[in-house]
Amino acid sequence: MHTYLDCYPCFLRQALSAARRVGANESQQYVIMGQTLALLQTLPLDKTPPEIGYAVHRIVREMLGHSDPYRAIKDASTRAALALYPRLKALVAESADPLETAVRLSIAGNIIDFAFSDELADLWTTVERVLASPFAFTDLAALRAALAMTDHVLYLADNAGETVFDRVLIELLQLPVTYCVKGGPALNDATREDAIAAGLAAPVDIIDNGSDAPGTILSLCSEAFRQIYAAAPLIIAKGQANYETLSAAGARVFFLLQVKCPVIGRDLGVPVGSVIVRQSRTF
Amino acid sequence: MHTYLDCYPCFLRQALSAARRVGANESQQYVIMGQTLALLQTLPLDKTPPEIGYAVHRIVREMLGHSDPYRAIKDASTRAALALYPRLKALVAESADPLETAVRLSIAGNIIDFAFSDELADLWTTVERVLASPFAFTDLAALRAALAMTDHVLYLADNAGETVFDRVLIELLQLPVTYCVKGGPALNDATREDAIAAGLAAPVDIIDNGSDAPGTILSLCSEAFRQIYAAAPLIIAKGQANYETLSAAGARVFFLLQVKCPVIGRDLGVPVGSVIVRQSRTF
Repeated sequence: MHTYLDCYPCFLRQALSAARRVGANESQQYVIMGQTLALLQTLPLDKTPPEIGYAVHRIVREMLGHSDPYRAIKDASTRAALALYPRLKALVAESADPLETAVRLSIAGNIIDFAFSDELADLWTTVERVLASPFAFTDLAALRAALAMTDHVLYLADNAGETVFDRVLIELLQLPVTYCVKGGPALNDATREDAIAAGLAAPVDIIDNGSDAPGTILSLCSEAFRQIYAAAPLIIAKGQANYETLSAAGARVFFLLQVKCPVIGRDLGVPVGSVIVRQSRTF
Repeated sequence: MHTYLDCYPCFLRQALSAARRVGANESQQYVIMGQTLALLQTLPLDKTPPEIGYAVHRIVREMLGHSDPYRAIKDASTRAALALYPRLKALVAESADPLETAVRLSIAGNIIDFAFSDELADLWTTVERVLASPFAFTDLAALRAALAMTDHVLYLADNAGETVFDRVLIELLQLPVTYCVKGGPALNDATREDAIAAGLAAPVDIIDNGSDAPGTILSLCSEAFRQIYAAAPLIIAKGQANYETLSAAGARVFFLLQVKCPVIGRDLGVPVGSVIVRQSRTF
């Protein structure tokens, strides 16, 4: 998905939010905003939003050091999600359609997203909403068929805490799964320690994509990851940033996400709040 | 009130919204956003937000002509408010405290504000909410006392349609009132025709401030207006932009507004949605 002009205000908001999160003082915030304004003037619109967002966050990092400002929030998100884990498992066990329920729970977990909000959402309320919402768009039947045919799933994680919801789906699949997290801190995206903290463990193979950018920007990922990606017969990609960066990736990619951004909603033709299972098209 | 870094995303959003409202095509929108980014890089933060907003809207005007893109919305807002006028009058007539009720209704009308939303709010719902809300901040007693002492009120209007709600308050005052609108189109701010369409008429004296900027930027107003402003014993100033531009104007100025913006809310120390009667302080 290319960047829309509507994304520009959001990049500025993210720059300011990230600067404050790492403790930038007023004058540092002012410099960061100025550099972000300069950056936005030079950027071509054919870049995806996560590519530009990554450049914005790099401005903050270069001024204020390579920390992991979302570490505490990631840990808290995982703890909050783990507290629900037994109830999530019970929902799947009691469901007439365990796969649909587990897919919905995985999407419910996608509410944990500090790119759009500075507060952790009420997870159980979200679970109830997502279980009850009609899909705004669904390729669940195609996903079900693809899962029945494949011998392996590459699962592209999104946020820490959401990892617990992913675990519930992965435990149902009974397939070899490679669970891919970020190679370094990108907002509140999951890294290896967040996957482990969520209880993901062998036989699930945890890898990282070698990049600390949001989404999956293949040009920034490691060669090792790119080979795994190229060979994967079926890919489940979580969240908006993976949709933004892989939307034209082809039919073996299935996006599971909640629409939290009106620009992505417009791109998908659905309202904010929508619950989506979408098979990628090749454009 | 000075401009905060939090305002920058909003300026970009307003530039894009204004460009689209006057029918800018994609490439014109792109140029306008680029010029807005460049403008924001050069602006000192000691300017008020309406001063910067005015400069942003001037970019759109200079590219796309001096039209009045909010004319249709202003007319529709006035019609919607006039439809409620008999009910508003009845509320005041039946009130145990007609002044407080009329002040609240005037504030309720301040919901009509296309700087923050592209849709006209439900006016009656707003009336009921504002009548029932505790004031987040109130200098109503001081306003009541000042009205009892004065022989004249200068009333600084905000938006078209809100003019009808202002009329209800003005008709109660039984004082000579000078009602001041904008000298030219500024967003959906009232101009002379909007005051007349709202039914404001002699003995109310309708003037304009000689400026097409939002709020009251005295340096951009006519000399005639500045003299009237300087001589006014009591000034009622409606809406956020007047607060932003006159917040340090001194004790004869009373702001009546709804807080629709989190930055103004922070400046005032109240949450978004707050209903405010505030006497200006001299800082």
